Amino acid sequence: MNCTLLTIGDEILIGQIVDTNSAWMAKQLNAIGIRVAEIISLSDSQQHIVEGLDRALAQSDIVLITGGLGPTKDDITKNVLADYFQSDLTFYPHIYAQLEEYLKRRGIAVVDAIHQMAMLPTKCQVIQNQKGMAAAMWFEQAGKVVVSMPGVPYEMIHFMEQSVLPMLADRFKLPAIYHHTLQCAGLGESVIAQKIEAIEDALPPHIKLAYLPSLGVVRLRLSASGDNYNALKADVLPIVEQIKNALTTKYLFAEGDETLPQTIAKLLLAKNATLATAESCTGGLIAHKITAIAGASSYFMGGVVTYSNQLKTQLLGVKPTTLDQYGAVSEQTVTEMAQGTIERLGVDYSIAVSGIAGPGGGTPDKPVGTIWVAVASKNKTRSKLFNYGRPHRDVNIELAANMALNELRKLLLDLEQ
Amino acid sequence: MNCTLLTIGDEILIGQIVDTNSAWMAKQLNAIGIRVAEIISLSDSQQHIVEGLDRALAQSDIVLITGGLGPTKDDITKNVLADYFQSDLTFYPHIYAQLEEYLKRRGIAVVDAIHQMAMLPTKCQVIQNQKGMAAAMWFEQAGKVVVSMPGVPYEMIHFMEQSVLPMLADRFKLPAIYHHTLQCAGLGESVIAQKIEAIEDALPPHIKLAYLPSLGVVRLRLSASGDNYNALKADVLPIVEQIKNALTTKYLFAEGDETLPQTIAKLLLAKNATLATAESCTGGLIAHKITAIAGASSYFMGGVVTYSNQLKTQLLGVKPTTLDQYGAVSEQTVTEMAQGTIERLGVDYSIAVSGIAGPGGGTPDKPVGTIWVAVASKNKTRSKLFNYGRPHRDVNIELAANMALNELRKLLLDLEQ
Repeated sequence: MNCTLLTIGDEILIGQIVDTNSAWMAKQLNAIGIRVAEIISLSDSQQHIVEGLDRALAQSDIVLITGGLGPTKDDITKNVLADYFQSDLTFYPHIYAQLEEYLKRRGIAVVDAIHQMAMLPTKCQVIQNQKGMAAAMWFEQAGKVVVSMPGVPYEMIHFMEQSVLPMLADRFKLPAIYHHTLQCAGLGESVIAQKIEAIEDALPPHIKLAYLPSLGVVRLRLSASGDNYNALKADVLPIVEQIKNALTTKYLFAEGDETLPQTIAKLLLAKNATLATAESCTGGLIAHKITAIAGASSYFMGGVVTYSNQLKTQLLGVKPTTLDQYGAVSEQTVTEMAQGTIERLGVDYSIAVSGIAGPGGGTPDKPVGTIWVAVASKNKTRSKLFNYGRPHRDVNIELAANMALNELRKLLLDLEQ
Repeated sequence: MNCTLLTIGDEILIGQIVDTNSAWMAKQLNAIGIRVAEIISLSDSQQHIVEGLDRALAQSDIVLITGGLGPTKDDITKNVLADYFQSDLTFYPHIYAQLEEYLKRRGIAVVDAIHQMAMLPTKCQVIQNQKGMAAAMWFEQAGKVVVSMPGVPYEMIHFMEQSVLPMLADRFKLPAIYHHTLQCAGLGESVIAQKIEAIEDALPPHIKLAYLPSLGVVRLRLSASGDNYNALKADVLPIVEQIKNALTTKYLFAEGDETLPQTIAKLLLAKNATLATAESCTGGLIAHKITAIAGASSYFMGGVVTYSNQLKTQLLGVKPTTLDQYGAVSEQTVTEMAQGTIERLGVDYSIAVSGIAGPGGGTPDKPVGTIWVAVASKNKTRSKLFNYGRPHRDVNIELAANMALNELRKLLLDLEQ
């Protein structure tokens, strides 16, 4: 089963926005067994949209279109699709009522433009927008499906999850697919591959393993396809166990989509424990990652960003002699930062980081990329040195934050460093 | 002048990575007067690449290809291009020498694979990679240009800036284009449009104005095209002055690509002044934005993330009676946070934020999205309430951080709130 994604709108072609929709859609489609053959970004022009549709329908069973459904003159997708499928526009009273209700709920005056938005092609199945205004349209022709959705990411995601993906699975009687994801921190792709080589070599042909790396974290995804979901799941679960045994919880932090800050949240909540952070080179990124999760205030008390040595001493009690003798980027300093956080901020656990993010500030002894991490509980402090040798400030900051979160996870689980 | 962008690689089609290259390239191409007609993402398949090239060359003068140039078997772009342009591969000794040097500098053993990487089509102009390994290839046929570059973003950017963009401008004798960007914070697109309506209506036909909005910041870009760069610049600069007068530095924070944290960095350095932050709902994001800039340690001393009320009192001296009487999200609390930061952290300027990022925690009086910001110097404290009515935690955190940075900017410039 093949799909082409068409994104419509000049804002992508002039580089004003990055097309994040297509990657999200491609991931979801692949997950239910629909291969994305091509992604095409087109301008708001009748001729381009028609040519794009012709090409997409020639090569695919499914065409998903996003964008070009706004109320302004340059949004022409609806009319082009009506023409393409030789359909009239007709007034959909329930769509009008919903648009009216949508505006009223927001205290916005009901404008004439919504009458126009409720005029939609006769020859399509109209899907109401639960998150915004423009409705989606589902066309069928010669056994193929064309769906047009708004380009606003959260509106598109809601349409896909609530309607389009289940409708596609149903319409095309898709093969069963079972996915299982394991997440690994602190090991590179090649080391992981080596550790699970025998397992990977023995995979049966209907089960695939994909490595999805990001900075400091690698996702391993097992995908099985066949006729019966439960049979596939039964095939995959023993392999999951083999991989878990090979990699161990020292490196595997989660199954599914859980992030490191979410894993830590669960561990802290289970212990009814509190956390605070002490950041130097990560400059607040660790606290930001932790507080990006709703409900973080139950376990995260706060943190300090001690960029200057003076604040390291004043807020965390790092001894001036330690800073003089070993420097700010040292095991001694980061250890005192972690311990000072426990004592001064009155929490159960702490994370401390000090490093050289670059591009400047490196020395032969402590080159750019040198990162010291310490994590502490009330009765234990552990420290670790990282250097991935990266020259980029943003990369070093992101890596340091992820490595520090992973060290805390290991301390919370009482795993070796 | 038209261009099609072809990105090659399954990692985009399976949604593993978001294609950020195309938006960057489109922006740069537009800036020199090359319109992007279409962006196409294809898989690593000979047939798809050939079909994509056929289509791209039928509609465009220029085709820029990224991806598929790695040393692994699934990277077939180079061989497909050699076939397509009926060219042999030949050994380029200077490319081999550069690859050898590249590996040696990194202490990596010289492997056979680099011989293969130095085999490149005879009928192309080879461009050396200054940032990585795979060389770029510039083909010409029937007056059209096809360039193939690696997909690694910083390698691609280096190729574009150092070679491809200037070579295209030269090869196609592109019209002169003059761009001037103004950046505006704290005003919505529609309010800006109203304030500069008369100026916009009076623009001559060869000058266009684009609004490029993001969360809390709108970029205004004037673009003029014609024969003579200096004449265009002379046409645009008076309009820039008109817009500056209409919007004033209260809202305009920078010209060009400077970000708010960069503007603040310049202002603090000019005053030889120091800064610290006190964050509640933004949870470290403001500190992260400030420290993402290399050299921030010259003016940024650090900050605190006081998520709990206890830390607001302990670290910043916020009075428990203030918290009891007015709550953590209040003008009184955020004012004491800003003043406490000045006093306790010993800095010249401070930023403090407390708000309800959501999705939970809202009340009828203080709904989700309520953000109090205070900024202070040693002898002045100013506070301001924001609520953009957004239901999304990440959006509220980002908006709050940008609004808080802008309030500090206004204090530093002694502008009204």
